[in-house]
Amino acid sequence: MAMAERTAVTAWEGDLAHGAGSINGASGALNQLGVTWASRTERAEGETSPEELIAAAHSSCFSMALAHGLTEAGHTPERLEVKATVTLDQVDGAPTVTSSELHVTGHVPGLEQLEFSKAATDAGKNCPISRALAGVEISVEAVLED
Amino acid sequence: MAMAERTAVTAWEGDLAHGAGSINGASGALNQLGVTWASRTERAEGETSPEELIAAAHSSCFSMALAHGLTEAGHTPERLEVKATVTLDQVDGAPTVTSSELHVTGHVPGLEQLEFSKAATDAGKNCPISRALAGVEISVEAVLED
Repeated sequence: MAMAERTAVTAWEGDLAHGAGSINGASGALNQLGVTWASRTERAEGETSPEELIAAAHSSCFSMALAHGLTEAGHTPERLEVKATVTLDQVDGAPTVTSSELHVTGHVPGLEQLEFSKAATDAGKNCPISRALAGVEISVEAVLED
Repeated sequence: MAMAERTAVTAWEGDLAHGAGSINGASGALNQLGVTWASRTERAEGETSPEELIAAAHSSCFSMALAHGLTEAGHTPERLEVKATVTLDQVDGAPTVTSSELHVTGHVPGLEQLEFSKAATDAGKNCPISRALAGVEISVEAVLED
């Protein structure tokens, strides 16, 4: 049996330019999230997009992987704040997710910046969502707070 | 300038087993979504997870790509319903996103099942999130409704 199966459904009506979709996740946490091509590529106007959802998936997965790595090394984090920035751009004429940039600030008692950077680099390479996003350039910047 | 940049932030406190995170998307649509390792890998208990967020991203992106492809072929869809099922499993001892299975039902006036299946296969190969998820096995099943 797999560790986990998670599902979401998008109901879409109409063409790409003028149509609209609504996303629901099976957990109930994602509830009728609106999406349109305009909100995806122009101003978000309060609506999510595939790229924002990827950013949410990546930042949360990386947080877990980094918390685990730090704890295994004897430094349980008090707090990590992970921002993921996902870019959609034209590549050879096709809209393409080109990069996911992770920026983490951490409050981790007793840890040195060098160890924190190393743990963050490891999490950025090895977390499940980083490995799933094999078509995307991933970068990690890590700053330890006092 | 890129077509779009979208960001999300996860704030995480504690270790992996007992800690918890909260996700916010910059658009405002993802608002303090709770995540834990337990809700990710055991019962969701109303909380999202990286895999559910990937499912939401994939189903919404695929919907847009399929709506676009059908429209270009002269068959604007009245309605598409796209379910994505994302599986996390152990591979060589590491939690790994192994697959994203897309299942689409469509109401598309005047279209034949064979054309619908072909358009769905194309969208599954070429939508930006499918290409981003290069480390994941992607499958597409398409059923045209009367």
